[in-house]
Amino acid sequence: MLIVMKFGGTSVANAERIFNVANRIVDSYRKGNKLIVVLSAQGDTTDELIEKANEINPDASKRELDMLLSTGEQQSVALMAMALQKLGVPAVSLNAQQCGIFSTSTHSNARIKNIATERISKELDAKNIVVITGFQGVDRNDDITTLGRGGSDTSAVALAAKLNADLCEIYTDVDGVYTSDPRIVKSARKLSVIGYDEMLELASLGAKVLHNRSVELAKKYNVNLVVRSSLTNDEGTIVKEESALEKMLVNGVAVDKDVARIAVCNLKDEPGIAFAIFSILAKNKVSVDIILQSIGRKNTKDISFTVAAGDLNEALKILEENKQRLGYSEILHDEEVAKVSIVGGGMATNAGVAASMFEALYNEGINIKMISTSEIKISVLVSEKDADRAANAVHEKFIFNEK
Amino acid sequence: MLIVMKFGGTSVANAERIFNVANRIVDSYRKGNKLIVVLSAQGDTTDELIEKANEINPDASKRELDMLLSTGEQQSVALMAMALQKLGVPAVSLNAQQCGIFSTSTHSNARIKNIATERISKELDAKNIVVITGFQGVDRNDDITTLGRGGSDTSAVALAAKLNADLCEIYTDVDGVYTSDPRIVKSARKLSVIGYDEMLELASLGAKVLHNRSVELAKKYNVNLVVRSSLTNDEGTIVKEESALEKMLVNGVAVDKDVARIAVCNLKDEPGIAFAIFSILAKNKVSVDIILQSIGRKNTKDISFTVAAGDLNEALKILEENKQRLGYSEILHDEEVAKVSIVGGGMATNAGVAASMFEALYNEGINIKMISTSEIKISVLVSEKDADRAANAVHEKFIFNEK
Repeated sequence: MLIVMKFGGTSVANAERIFNVANRIVDSYRKGNKLIVVLSAQGDTTDELIEKANEINPDASKRELDMLLSTGEQQSVALMAMALQKLGVPAVSLNAQQCGIFSTSTHSNARIKNIATERISKELDAKNIVVITGFQGVDRNDDITTLGRGGSDTSAVALAAKLNADLCEIYTDVDGVYTSDPRIVKSARKLSVIGYDEMLELASLGAKVLHNRSVELAKKYNVNLVVRSSLTNDEGTIVKEESALEKMLVNGVAVDKDVARIAVCNLKDEPGIAFAIFSILAKNKVSVDIILQSIGRKNTKDISFTVAAGDLNEALKILEENKQRLGYSEILHDEEVAKVSIVGGGMATNAGVAASMFEALYNEGINIKMISTSEIKISVLVSEKDADRAANAVHEKFIFNEK
Repeated sequence: MLIVMKFGGTSVANAERIFNVANRIVDSYRKGNKLIVVLSAQGDTTDELIEKANEINPDASKRELDMLLSTGEQQSVALMAMALQKLGVPAVSLNAQQCGIFSTSTHSNARIKNIATERISKELDAKNIVVITGFQGVDRNDDITTLGRGGSDTSAVALAAKLNADLCEIYTDVDGVYTSDPRIVKSARKLSVIGYDEMLELASLGAKVLHNRSVELAKKYNVNLVVRSSLTNDEGTIVKEESALEKMLVNGVAVDKDVARIAVCNLKDEPGIAFAIFSILAKNKVSVDIILQSIGRKNTKDISFTVAAGDLNEALKILEENKQRLGYSEILHDEEVAKVSIVGGGMATNAGVAASMFEALYNEGINIKMISTSEIKISVLVSEKDADRAANAVHEKFIFNEK
């Protein structure tokens, strides 16, 4: 089998951990697999390099920052190749320039456009384990780019897609994808398989196992992904295309406490008001999640919405600056809220899921502040103090009982 | 003017020093010069990376070691470009892959074969200061190589040669080339100019200002070199082709205390004995300097020679192992010796220089143990305790009085 194995920075933080990973790679190699290993920078290396850069010039061009940061992964891959050689297997490290991982020129947030496979194939044919820098590419000027958050996952999936790998293994510090956060929901259990779309919804809901870009890419090219622990031999969770028949009603319950609610009150009830509010926020890079519009008294309306807690102050400032233009009377906000969501591919074809969820919350005496639904997701906003109880109740209703 | 400026690792060891260097570069840029800046890795970075590699695999392939080490210079150039941008001048960093500094494939000790100038010229035309990684190249497989000791000087001179630069400035922690070591010889003074050949002899005699490979390259392509301090604005020393008329009788006096003398006694007086001794040593990478052969009693001869002090034990071991084959009676050795040398392009055409040197030593009552001469150099071996007095006496005779 041709397998892409991806390990994060924690897994290669020091010599001991590098050998742990190297031993796992050698095991797979000795089974006759052809291996591509994708690595992140060691431990805190990237943060340390960013600090060095900030000390010199916080406004340095992103091109130079990428030039600096890319050295982190290059060190990881060279050290890993050395460790593999020490264990008696042939290995060669390659950076993005050497592989030909071509990307857009958007430094610090580039997208992979294509991968030249000649060099990689040559090394695989020579029985080498090919150890490749994650997180980076080169643009058409031969300048080094980095791929932004979750970039190494994306590198791994892109390589698996381009080389038609049989499997893309993403090694992390958790042993798979869970039906909910085990720290909150006691009955949470590991999923043996999940669909791409459900994984995407879960990731966007705060299950930070895989970055969305890598899952989107896996979906697009139908790459068999496995999320598993670099510390155990557990089987992990397979992420793949699920047929409708296989779809579970609800795959997971996600809790996101990192949200805030804003209410803009007594807006004039005119066309275009909602557009005005959300286009101003979008222009200022504030992402809005659940939106709710209610009819107020005397030809006015209220618009409430949620933002990431970190964007709250920015959002309030923007709305304040545009008070005259928007013509509202006051703004309320609430940080003591949390979003509880259920995700499942089976939901789209199964009526009554929302009702069941609301019933579970009602039975716990939990008040719902806002509701948002999509084809495979239902989210509710509740008080932060109710969040864990809400998650447990919903998880029990849909997942624990189902088992 | 097109100028190549090279700074060593100490000059870019931290943010403060990087800005010191950056300010100097900006001064030159504002005078209208086109600038190529060549940098080494910061401070102890290279040593730290070697340590990391040794921890994992002391026998790692040199290819992987080069992959690892090359990140040091890449960090330097990115940080310097950021500092220059901070000071308001346009700058771009390039690694050896991006420049196209093509080398042989001898990892850890590669030679530059050619430099593709397109990218560099493009950046210079765009008014950018081009900051380039020293010490490294890429071979024809696109693998990263390093150039071995003094590699960054060599990178700078090679770039100056290929781009026809008007000047190649090598910045160090000394302010130029001296007629002798100022710590030993009180009357030592800075040379304003020295010829390539004399510089080569001085370098090989322990004046560790410029690595020989860079001087050889400068000579070959007639590159105007300047050695100057990165801490002061002193003019430094120009290294260039000198015409015979300009040649000083003696340019410098060098003292090397890092030597040891070995005497192999009572060898059979047969052809091939000297060859046998020195081929065995050469095969074991022991370099021999001054050689003296003397006729002994009863058809035997003695052969004495000097080696670097660090090679003494290895040399003795090798000779001991081959005692039977070489057929000597005993080996003597002496570490309490030093080599004092005078170097000068004018020597070749001026008889009596050796006699004058010996006279100066005789006047000081210093005994000469061995003598070696070349076209532009005379070396004598003396007791280590006499070395400083010998250097002063000879310096006074040839250089101080000449002034």
